[in-house]
Amino acid sequence: MIDAVSFENNTLGYLDQRLLPLKEEYIRTTSYLDAIEAIKTLAVRGAPLIGIVASYTVMLGLNSYNGNKEEFPAYFEKLIAEVEASRPTAVNLFFATARMKEVYDAHFASDSLEELFSKMLAAARKIHNDEIANCENMARHGVELIQQDLAETLKTRKLNVLTHCNTGTLATGGSGTALGVIKHAWQEGLIEKVITAESRPLLQGLRLTAWELEKESIPFLSISDSSSAFLMQKGMIDFGIVGADRIAANGDTANKIGTFAHAVSAARHNVPYYIAAPVSTVDITLSDGSQIPIEERSADELRTIFGNQVATPSTPVLNYAFDVTPNEYIRGIVTDKKAVVGNYTEELKKLVD
Amino acid sequence: MIDAVSFENNTLGYLDQRLLPLKEEYIRTTSYLDAIEAIKTLAVRGAPLIGIVASYTVMLGLNSYNGNKEEFPAYFEKLIAEVEASRPTAVNLFFATARMKEVYDAHFASDSLEELFSKMLAAARKIHNDEIANCENMARHGVELIQQDLAETLKTRKLNVLTHCNTGTLATGGSGTALGVIKHAWQEGLIEKVITAESRPLLQGLRLTAWELEKESIPFLSISDSSSAFLMQKGMIDFGIVGADRIAANGDTANKIGTFAHAVSAARHNVPYYIAAPVSTVDITLSDGSQIPIEERSADELRTIFGNQVATPSTPVLNYAFDVTPNEYIRGIVTDKKAVVGNYTEELKKLVD
Repeated sequence: MIDAVSFENNTLGYLDQRLLPLKEEYIRTTSYLDAIEAIKTLAVRGAPLIGIVASYTVMLGLNSYNGNKEEFPAYFEKLIAEVEASRPTAVNLFFATARMKEVYDAHFASDSLEELFSKMLAAARKIHNDEIANCENMARHGVELIQQDLAETLKTRKLNVLTHCNTGTLATGGSGTALGVIKHAWQEGLIEKVITAESRPLLQGLRLTAWELEKESIPFLSISDSSSAFLMQKGMIDFGIVGADRIAANGDTANKIGTFAHAVSAARHNVPYYIAAPVSTVDITLSDGSQIPIEERSADELRTIFGNQVATPSTPVLNYAFDVTPNEYIRGIVTDKKAVVGNYTEELKKLVD
Repeated sequence: MIDAVSFENNTLGYLDQRLLPLKEEYIRTTSYLDAIEAIKTLAVRGAPLIGIVASYTVMLGLNSYNGNKEEFPAYFEKLIAEVEASRPTAVNLFFATARMKEVYDAHFASDSLEELFSKMLAAARKIHNDEIANCENMARHGVELIQQDLAETLKTRKLNVLTHCNTGTLATGGSGTALGVIKHAWQEGLIEKVITAESRPLLQGLRLTAWELEKESIPFLSISDSSSAFLMQKGMIDFGIVGADRIAANGDTANKIGTFAHAVSAARHNVPYYIAAPVSTVDITLSDGSQIPIEERSADELRTIFGNQVATPSTPVLNYAFDVTPNEYIRGIVTDKKAVVGNYTEELKKLVD
């Protein structure tokens, strides 16, 4: 498996994703300031992976503490604030720091610093292991659903699957959400090849998903995003599976821009289209997709590619980073608890409760 | 109007499109070898524009002839062969050289070289003027159709229109096919703004269409190709209009990859979607779109962007340059003769006959 993040001998290891796929640089550091910089500069990305790295960053900060117990609370407070400031919009980062603070609150009074740090390390490892386990569970539920839905086709041949953006190890620290399901399905012998859409503007599909698939020796083809409709017309895609940024109570799903475009073509060509995401992605307080705020990102993401200008700096751009796929386009939502199909409002509520 | 090509004082002028939009370089040359190089290196592109430049290239070759009448046939034959070798797949280039050969065949025996060259210059100018007239006619028929189809919306507000790739002056030498219709509709006060899809892999929308719209002071927004579905979902696109590479007898249309993806979303959201192309694009010998050969182009078009590597050289890519939009997705086909709607098999046959 790809090693996107590690924590051994009090040393954080991570792959600098900005350089992928052209250069594989695995960074090792014992400095929490280096780790914060890695989060800030997007050397590590992907919501779950940021959570894992944030928890290990806290550990690096603790390991470099050489004061006494009395002075520790002030140090810890400052450390958490610094970690939280590294990427203030990353929800998983705040989950991670909240978990570390819980351990601190529960044990600081009674434990020695050594005992406390040991419990916090266990908490950090659990965040990482939980992500790995979530991916394994999604993979299992997803493969079952696909085997069932595509049983007829599987009687005669393997499947070609479309995916979008990067939802693999580089995003999650585990095998992945949608890409985890795909990897597992390939191991089970269900997959002929993966069609990976490049995912403009930032090309995570062309750069990162392609890199992961090559590493895992899974056959694939990279395409431009707007090729998927034509490939479906030609019968070259049997199903699609993508991740989710946020899922509303009724199953409407916000995900990387382009997710909905593939979904419309899939619906038109009777190609089943799935979402894979942990239950934590479901926001039961939003009744439907219209309530999910959609981020508009910098025009320069389109106007430049890796620092190279392709359009003039004055070119007006509308750059929605995400789109919303209404539930009627979604054949099933694969979560770590189970795969739900059909009445999402009812089913998702049961999962979250 | 944008000056994409000119021929004054025996000098060919053209805009080097490879540098656009970052640099506007207008080249002037009296050398037919320079002109051939411009066609070869894609400094000029777009089927009709290549035809125009090819005819002027023949004129440059004639102007540099300083032999006698007896030796001229061999020179002319070699010149035509050199021009035709500059881009052997460009149909319009062969239309242009065929036209020049016709003039030669009809008048070489009876005319002096001076008289012959004068008739050939007239033929070259006619190729250029015919393209301009074709665009004007398409624009007129297109605007009429849109006014009629979108009359209800136009009672209360102006329209937002989606387009793809570049179909303007840079492609045609006239106002354009689809983009010509848009420009004309904007002059008539029908258009609020143009949404231009970037058109990966070669970004003609982001680079060339955006540049033309900026030059013409027409309000627009550039988007990633896979944003169009989300914008339609949000009601931000009232109609789409694109060009055509080739139209089958039943109206099925091959055009730049992505054309069909927009069409599927348009159908789903009840957004009228039009094709604009001269009658010469209709190939009545092909009964439907399945007979149109679709070119697969180099993987490096996706793997590199303007010479900058974005994916590894080993990344497998499937790069269809065109897709086919079945006739049921097309609300109308706007040609230079008339706009046809409905029974394309019958209507297109009448136009071609």
